[in-house]
Parts: sequence; structure tokens; C-alpha cells
Amino acid sequence: MAKSRFEYVKEFEKENYLLQNCYIIIRIDGKNFHKFSKEYQFEKPNDSRALNLMNKASLSLFSKFNDVIMAYGDSDEYSFLLRKNTVLYERRESKLNSIFVSFFTAYYNHYWNEFFPDNPLDVNRLPTFDSRCILYPSAENVKDYFKWRQVDCHINNLYNTTFWTLIEKGKLSPKEAENKLIGTLSSDKNEILFSQFGINYNNEKEIYKKGTIITRDYNYNKSNKEIENENENENKNKNTGKIFEVNLTERQKQRENKKIKRAKILIEHIDLIKDDFWKEKSIF
Amino acid sequence: MAKSRFEYVKEFEKENYLLQNCYIIIRIDGKNFHKFSKEYQFEKPNDSRALNLMNKASLSLFSKFNDVIMAYGDSDEYSFLLRKNTVLYERRESKLNSIFVSFFTAYYNHYWNEFFPDNPLDVNRLPTFDSRCILYPSAENVKDYFKWRQVDCHINNLYNTTFWTLIEKGKLSPKEAENKLIGTLSSDKNEILFSQFGINYNNEKEIYKKGTIITRDYNYNKSNKEIENENENENKNKNTGKIFEVNLTERQKQRENKKIKRAKILIEHIDLIKDDFWKEKSIF
Amino acid sequence: MAKSRFEYVKEFEKENYLLQNCYIIIRIDGKNFHKFSKEYQFEKPNDSRALNLMNKASLSLFSKFNDVIMAYGDSDEYSFLLRKNTVLYERRESKLNSIFVSFFTAYYNHYWNEFFPDNPLDVNRLPTFDSRCILYPSAENVKDYFKWRQVDCHINNLYNTTFWTLIEKGKLSPKEAENKLIGTLSSDKNEILFSQFGINYNNEKEIYKKGTIITRDYNYNKSNKEIENENENENKNKNTGKIFEVNLTERQKQRENKKIKRAKILIEHIDLIKDDFWKEKSIF
Amino acid sequence: MAKSRFEYVKEFEKENYLLQNCYIIIRIDGKNFHKFSKEYQFEKPNDSRALNLMNKASLSLFSKFNDVIMAYGDSDEYSFLLRKNTVLYERRESKLNSIFVSFFTAYYNHYWNEFFPDNPLDVNRLPTFDSRCILYPSAENVKDYFKWRQVDCHINNLYNTTFWTLIEKGKLSPKEAENKLIGTLSSDKNEILFSQFGINYNNEKEIYKKGTIITRDYNYNKSNKEIENENENENKNKNTGKIFEVNLTERQKQRENKKIKRAKILIEHIDLIKDDFWKEKSIF
Repeated sequence: MAKSRFEYVKEFEKENYLLQNCYIIIRIDGKNFHKFSKEYQFEKPNDSRALNLMNKASLSLFSKFNDVIMAYGDSDEYSFLLRKNTVLYERRESKLNSIFVSFFTAYYNHYWNEFFPDNPLDVNRLPTFDSRCILYPSAENVKDYFKWRQVDCHINNLYNTTFWTLIEKGKLSPKEAENKLIGTLSSDKNEILFSQFGINYNNEKEIYKKGTIITRDYNYNKSNKEIENENENENKNKNTGKIFEVNLTERQKQRENKKIKRAKILIEHIDLIKDDFWKEKSIF
Repeated sequence: MAKSRFEYVKEFEKENYLLQNCYIIIRIDGKNFHKFSKEYQFEKPNDSRALNLMNKASLSLFSKFNDVIMAYGDSDEYSFLLRKNTVLYERRESKLNSIFVSFFTAYYNHYWNEFFPDNPLDVNRLPTFDSRCILYPSAENVKDYFKWRQVDCHINNLYNTTFWTLIEKGKLSPKEAENKLIGTLSSDKNEILFSQFGINYNNEKEIYKKGTIITRDYNYNKSNKEIENENENENKNKNTGKIFEVNLTERQKQRENKKIKRAKILIEHIDLIKDDFWKEKSIF
Repeated sequence: MAKSRFEYVKEFEKENYLLQNCYIIIRIDGKNFHKFSKEYQFEKPNDSRALNLMNKASLSLFSKFNDVIMAYGDSDEYSFLLRKNTVLYERRESKLNSIFVSFFTAYYNHYWNEFFPDNPLDVNRLPTFDSRCILYPSAENVKDYFKWRQVDCHINNLYNTTFWTLIEKGKLSPKEAENKLIGTLSSDKNEILFSQFGINYNNEKEIYKKGTIITRDYNYNKSNKEIENENENENKNKNTGKIFEVNLTERQKQRENKKIKRAKILIEHIDLIKDDFWKEKSIF
Repeated sequence: MAKSRFEYVKEFEKENYLLQNCYIIIRIDGKNFHKFSKEYQFEKPNDSRALNLMNKASLSLFSKFNDVIMAYGDSDEYSFLLRKNTVLYERRESKLNSIFVSFFTAYYNHYWNEFFPDNPLDVNRLPTFDSRCILYPSAENVKDYFKWRQVDCHINNLYNTTFWTLIEKGKLSPKEAENKLIGTLSSDKNEILFSQFGINYNNEKEIYKKGTIITRDYNYNKSNKEIENENENENKNKNTGKIFEVNLTERQKQRENKKIKRAKILIEHIDLIKDDFWKEKSIF
């Protein structure tokens, strides 16, 4: 049987190799989660079970890939940052995009019963996600990306908290609540919450206001001597912008992997807009 | 809080709108299924439960999207053909790619227990998939694509059937079996099966030899008069290569959707390399 | 000297191989020709010397590349159609785009003095061009592309003819002429020309109204027997949509090239919107 | 006349907007210059007239675009570096690529007679060029790019100098010279030149050994006070990696343009592999 007669079709497949020396962010978004959250009766404005499920799925994905150096999520979305010199799947966009969203979907579906034991999944409404890869050439861009997402989390959460308080405590209809909030500033929403309902927005849970940050603490359980040595080694390679993996010896690679395995994974709900966050973390 | 200061990062997101008037094929592949199938003790060379699970997940995905007009799968892969004028997700590659693989992953994980009731999924080894979008400008290319996959199915299945028969019935080690098959033609493998083990390859199950084809039979349950009318209407639009949706009236769209909903979904294990298949199906 | 230390930068170069089995159109546009035409005092609304120069440059480019099967131009733009199975420069977008525009620029500058002997080129205002590659999957799309350009030529020429007649014969200022034409239909412009100035637009030169079409007449100087034989051979390969060059014998390639070399190049100013044009030409 | 019926074809045009916050290098290469240089009898191994013509064309292009901050060329190629935040032609790849190569072609053809007064251009052998855009995310990558090209210049020039000396002074045939050089190191070639022909390679012209570098000296003709002020202003914007043009006031833009216009353009043939070059220039 002539195999070759049809095989020419393979040449129509095109790989997009993502530009080298750029950070890759893969952002995963819940598909139609506005409707999905209603169907499974998520609590409003925030459902802790749903957020914890997102976090657990993300944590599993984070642990799976050493090249993911940070993740941030809120609501039904999560962003995963890959180090700028990663050669994971040869930086092929389709591979990275599909494998990340496939893992995320598998984990989310798998963990569902743990968080929603009384709401079994309906096969006609399974949770699914879309995703995309984004390239950022500089650490500055990456920081601004995460700041953008955290500002967005804050803005949405303040809006949703006020909106649902107006409905649940203020007995407004959704339409009335919406109208009341048109054109309001952050300060106005804070004022509504405080003066009408005695709610101090600052006291809301940090996970709602700040979202969730996943990072690795590489210094965990490590002697000062070890830390010094590593800093020295790293400074040699730093900022060269080259795909230096090629030149790493096997021993260096093993040491690098060991370092990552030993690192403690941190889950935090803290401010990343101020510079302090980035100074403290050893991400860039 | 200055939202705009960070929002510039959004401009780094790039959409790839897939070329219009081309067929889109989305192919989904099991990630590391060679190893995965060992861990969950799939039967060799073919595990009917695993194939039926692939087929059920694909059928669910097929039913979900009216714009998928044909699907073909064997082993741990499945290809979905979208009609050439689809505007699903505006033909954005990342959206199509991620949403298809996410749905597939969700269905596959969800149906697992139905097919493997005694092998519950281990969270550290969940089934995941990668995927890619491929563009084909002509019906001829699309036919050749599916022929390529079916030839591949046949070649692999003949090899695997012979390989595993040599091991299980011939008591060879995997290495010995591999060596014995080096350089053999199809006819040699047929001969080994027949003369040494009395197996006529032609009598193997069609699903193993041909894979699985999913299509819609639009003429199901339809009067001859209706069929005639539709043919007439279609001929008007045919082959114009234009994104004609824009000009479809609401009534036409409803009629089109109704036609798809009413169609019977066919699951077959038949030859698609000969022209007969394509003549009979109303895919192009 | 360590050559390899820097050579990694080569990997940042990305080739875009244009999708196979699609027609490629390369459209070249004069850069800033609105201003350029004023500086070199082109006649308005049409300058025959400038059009003939565009045509001569295009003809030279057309003759240079056997894979260009048709060209169409008007005003300061020209579109070159490459056959759908061309492997010119391996279908690399940057190569095709840059080489075509470079040849065009060289020819245009070279021929300038022949058409504008009294207007020598000023080095600060040399004629330059931009260009782009566009993919079309079907012959239908390609026909519609050229129809689009010819309709555009007609619309612009009718407008410009009326506009400049109002200025030159009607003694209106440019602003007055512009205002008079706002909201007018083709019929209105025809009427203005005829009733006010006694100009029958239909009698304008065909090159102005229709632009210029360059094709090859392969049947030129050929016996009927030869034509019959070729038709037979072509029907065998036709519409397969495969990159069939690979399988052409050396003898077939030579015969093909000979056929192209022997063909007569036609330059015409005729209607290509009606089907007659496409039926007569053996382009698809 | 129904314009809209065909206009859908416009949607097949795809723009590639080059990733923001990356340096863009446009490299222009002579098309078939190996053959071209023979036809116009260029001197070997280096023809000063040809190099000066390349340099003059590049200088004209450099002067045309304020966003080009450096250029480097040798032999028949030239690379132009655009600043990383340029929004020239909205960073559209096809526009940048075609316009640069078109300008270069126009200038090269225009200046030809000045450098080769006795070799008029033959219309069948006009000089043409191809070009490509390359993205580099970091200054380090850009430096390595230019180092790569200068190392290449050196290697080629040493080879060519030895090769042609063996032919012209050593009376070897081209084939014999080629064979003699197979497997030789730089030191071997230096030795051949010196011991056999008394040529000290170090004394060869710098333009041959180092190629040509074009930059701007912004501090030219400027008071110390002015320099200080500018440094201060620049430090504010530096390294933010943002498309800051958007926020520049009109006054700032004017000042920026004035600064560029006033700058002195430098043409040098010096080493750029050592760090000194980059420290001295204010490119990054």
C-alpha cells in the first residue's frame, strides 16, 4: 500500500516556535463560566470552594512543570509564567497551549467532587477552558502583566462585592443594583458598602481582593553557605539572554532540578503591585 | 487606582485568524499514551474499552459543534474536520485549539469509569492530550489527509497485531519479535500471522483495521421532496468560496441548524481510501 | 576566534512558508505616490507616461518569473499572481515579498528616463514601493480579487475624471469640485461629464477605465495537434492540489519551461469582471 | 456597480505586527551577487567602489529613518537596527521589509554610475536585493548579532584575501587555491600570506577586515549643560519597556526629532566585538 501518496499532507502542518529569550505566559480562562457558575450555584460574589478548586488544579499544574516559575489566578482564570529560556516542547505554541489547558481541565474535573461533593458534574455541562500563549520580552513587561491582572481582580471584586451586597442586603434587583453602580468610582463603592451596610472593604478576605500567587521558595531548608554559592553561580549566567541550556553540563542540570524539587511551593494572597513583592521574590 | 498604566501589556497578545475558505482539521493526540496505556494495563495490540472511550469522547465533541462535519480516529488520536467557511470563534487558532482539547479531555476523563470501572484514575497519571490546527485549501487535500491517517492505522495495526501475536502466541520476547519484523513487508506479516498462527488478518475487527469514522446523515428521516429542494438550494451557494454566512438570512440559518440537529450521527469502521466513500457522503 | 559564541542569534530568524496549494498574489503599491506624482508633475487625472512606465516595469518582472501567470495594474499599484503550486523561493514570504519589490523598484527607476526624459529623478525623491503577499485558496477567490481591483480602478477613474474636468474645464477649485461630488452615484458623475462638458465617459481610453492585464498566450504559434496533446496531459494533473513538481520528470519540466518561453505575452485593457474573460484565458 | 460583492477578498490580507518591546533588525542581501560581481567585473577579493556604493546607499537609508539607530554592512549585505519601541509603519512586517528593500534598491541603482562610471547597468542584470526582519528581545542579543556579522566579515575576508593572493600572486588555479585552504585555521592563512607573499594581514584596510558601522553621535556640537539635561530626561523613560511614544507630549517629540536631526552621522570601520565599542556608543 502506497503510504507516500498521501503523506504530502503532513507538510501543511505549521509549527510556531515562540520567539527565544522571551518570557511565555499561558493564560487559562473558564469557558462560559458566567453561566457555568449559575448552573452549579456558585456563591456570589465569591465562592471559596470554586477558588480553592482553581488553586488546587493550578498547583498541580505548577508542580508538574519545573519551568513554570510563577502563577497568578483569580475568578475563573489563571496565568502561568515560564522562564524566558525554557525549551519546553521546543517552545512550540500549539503544544504548550494544548498541553497546559488539557492538564488544567483534567485536574479541575478530577478535583471537582472534593470541593463540590453535593453538586456532581453533569456530562452536558462539564467545566472546560480556553487558553493562549503570550510573549513578553522583558521582566518589566511581565511584572506589569501580573499587576494588570491583580488590578483587574481588585476592580472586579469591589464591583461584585458592592453589586451583590446591594442585592442580598439592600434587596435591590440586579437591574437596580447595576444602575446604581453606573459611573461610580472605587471610593463611591467603598462608601456604599460602609455607610449603607457597615462593611469595611479592607476587611474582606485577601484571597478575594488580591487573588492567588504561586511561587517557589528556593531557599527553603538551605544553609547560608549554599545560598551564597548559588548566587555566585547564577550571576555568571544572568542576563546573557542566551539559550544557555545547551551548554549546561549534565551535573549542572541535575543540580538545577534538585534545587527546584527541594524548593517549597508558596501560595499567597498578597500585593504584587508594589515593588516590594518583586524585590523579595527571586523570579527575575 | 490607575488601571491604564499596566493595560498596555494586553497589546502583546496576538491572534492568529486562520486563513478563510480553508478547511480546518483539529487533531488531538494522547500525551504519552504509550506509557499511559501500560500504566492502566490496556490490552495489546488493541484495547476495545480504550477505543470505545476515545470514540465516546469524540462523539460528544462532534455533537457539540455543528461546524464539525467529519471526524476520524484510531489508537490515541482523533481528527476533527470543520467546514471550510466556519466562523467558529472567528477562526482564532488559540481558541479553537484550546477549547477542542479541553472538551476532549473533560469528556475522556468523565467517561473513564464507564469503560474502566476497575481501574480508577490516579491523579498523578490523568489522561491528557495535545492538539493542533491544520489548514487545507481543497477537498482533495482533506480526503488525502484522512486517507493518510487510515493508511497509518492499517500499517500500525498490522505491525502491532503481528508483534503481539509473536509475543503472546509465539512466546518471543519483545526484542525478538521486533527483530523478526525488521524489513518485513505487509505481505510478510500477513504470511507470518497465517502460516504460523492460523490467523487471517482480513478477519480482524474492522474497528482495528480501519479506525472509526463519524459523520452526519442529513437525509435521515427526510422525504424525497425535501432532499430535492435542498440540493437545489445548495447548488446556488456551492463552491463560491465566500464567507457566505454574512449574507444568510435568519430563516436560512435556522433551517440549516434544524437540518444538522435532525441529522443522524453515523459511526462507521469502513474504507475511506477508495472514492466510493467520498461519493456516498455529502461532505464536500 | 570563536564563531559559535554569537551564532545562536541566527535561530531568532523565522521563515513564514506560505500555505501550500494556495494562490499567492504579490501586490506592489507606490509609496506616497499622491505626493510623488505632484512633485514630478504627473498629468491629471491620468498620466500615460506614468502608466506606461508601471506597465513596462511590470512586464519586465512578469517575464522574469515563469511562475507569475497573470498581472493586473492600474494607477500606482500592480498585482502579480503566482500559480498555486509554485515553489519559488520555497514559498518563503520574506524572500518573495522583498525580491519582487526590489526588482520592481529597480526596473521602475531604470526606465524612468525613457518615459520622463525631461524630469530627471531627484535622489531625495526616488520612486519606492511597498508590497505584500496574499494567499487565496481557490480560483474563485483569485477571480474576485482581480474583479475587486478592476472595479476599484473604474470607480477611482470615474471620480478622478469628473473631479479634474470640473477643475480644468469647469474652473472649480479642488475644494468646490470635491464638495460637488460628495454623495454622487456613478450615474450622476456620468451625467455631469456628459451634460456639462459633452464628455461621454464610455469613450475614455480603455487603459484608464480598465487598467492593464498581463497574461501569456500559450497557444501562440502552435499547431492544433500540439494543443490537443497538451490539453490531455494537463487534465491528468489538474485539480489534484498536490505539489506535483516533485514528481515531474526532467523532461516534463523542460517541456513546461519551453512552453512558457514560447508563449506570447499579452497586454490588454479589457473587462475581467464578466465570466468571458476567465473562460477564454487558460489561467485556472 | 456592486463594489461590495468582491470586497470580501480584502479580509484574506494578514498583517504581522512585530512583537512590541523588541529590537527589529532588517537585513538586506544582494541577490545573486556572486554572479553579479563577476558580470560587472568587481575587483577581488574586495572592490572598494562596490563597498562604497553599498555604504552610500545605506547612509541614505539611515538618514531617511530616525528610528534606525545603527547599521552594519560588509560585502553585499547590510543590517539596519530599529530602536525597540519604534512604531514605524505600526511595526507591520511586510511594510517594513518591503519599504526598506525598495529604498535600498532605488539608492543603489541611482548611485551606480557615480561609482562605476565605465560599467553602465544592463537592464537584464540590474542589482536587486532580498531582505528580512528579525526580532531581538534584548540589547545583549543585538550586540551578539552584530558581533556575529563582524566575525563573519573577518572570516570571509581572511579566506578571500588568501584565496585571491594564491591565485593572483601564487599563480594557482581557483581549484588549487580552494584545495590548499581546506581545513586551514586562521593562523594558517595568516602564515601563508606572510611567509609566501610577505603580506601582513593586520595591515589590510580596516573596511575590509571590519566592515562598516553607521551610528549617530547625538552629543555633537552640544553644550555640557545640554548633555546633562538629556541624560536626566532619558533616565526617567529608560528600560520601562513600554510603548512610551503614546505618552510623549508634542514638545517632547519635537525635541527628540531635533536631537536626531542635529546628530552627526558617523561611518566607522572599527572593532565592535570588544565591549569598549558598546560602552562608548549611546545605542542602548
